[in-house]
Amino acid sequence: MKITLLLTGKTTEKYIDEGVKTYETRVKRYLSFEIVALPEARNLANPDVIRSKEAISQLAAIDNADYLILLCERGKQHTSQQFAANLQQFMNRSTKHVKFLIGGAYGFAPAMYERANEQISLSSLTFSHQLVRLVFMEQLYRAFTILHNEPYHHN
Amino acid sequence: MKITLLLTGKTTEKYIDEGVKTYETRVKRYLSFEIVALPEARNLANPDVIRSKEAISQLAAIDNADYLILLCERGKQHTSQQFAANLQQFMNRSTKHVKFLIGGAYGFAPAMYERANEQISLSSLTFSHQLVRLVFMEQLYRAFTILHNEPYHHN
Repeated sequence: MKITLLLTGKTTEKYIDEGVKTYETRVKRYLSFEIVALPEARNLANPDVIRSKEAISQLAAIDNADYLILLCERGKQHTSQQFAANLQQFMNRSTKHVKFLIGGAYGFAPAMYERANEQISLSSLTFSHQLVRLVFMEQLYRAFTILHNEPYHHN
Repeated sequence: MKITLLLTGKTTEKYIDEGVKTYETRVKRYLSFEIVALPEARNLANPDVIRSKEAISQLAAIDNADYLILLCERGKQHTSQQFAANLQQFMNRSTKHVKFLIGGAYGFAPAMYERANEQISLSSLTFSHQLVRLVFMEQLYRAFTILHNEPYHHN
């Protein structure tokens, strides 16, 4: 199985970028993983237009066979163990490519919710779409340590 | 009102430290705020002993009049708006000093749950006690932007 994390917009905060890279290196020990930054729509006053414009690049980055999971506030909340169990299920079902998508500052266009196979939320709290990147990466790494019974989970 | 964030153990990851400092500077624009790192118990095999040892320093850092909020997995989950509304309530009630406490790698001793006035959870997911620092600081900053109707919340 391959996992791709699709980001909408570059990572602007240096400390987020460093943290994401730390976990990216660790996750790559377990499976084929890559992070792809998609263009963010800028200088537009209307959030609907921003979301629609971003959706064009987002949809172009997703193949028909990909299993697409949106990270969004309206998604389902999991424990770390449940999230790990979900990843195990994908591997058991021989899912070839799982793509996680983090939206831009204004969230997703309706087209993205229609395309998504699943939606997950990292918290009831709202995190910046920059911080979401780091929180997600730590969870992804944690999931593999759980699946491999490695000691990180309690640290 | 004054807010103190009590941490158990130093911040070991440089990117977490940088992120925390970024938000610390921003939060200080709104009220008196400080971060205090308490000693972490080390080289002990028994988690109960670790938690009890850490509780001694934690209790010593809390005055009788302080309103103590533990950040822990069994705590109540809030939205960012609810968390901001809670802070506003403390200000309305003239609470003098609110202390948020992040535990060590093994969580809190029973004595800390007994002393706590409130327990809040940042997510159903488990975060490392290092990452919790950054996630909490972003929420604290976000709360003040919500209370002051500033534009950060949607970014």
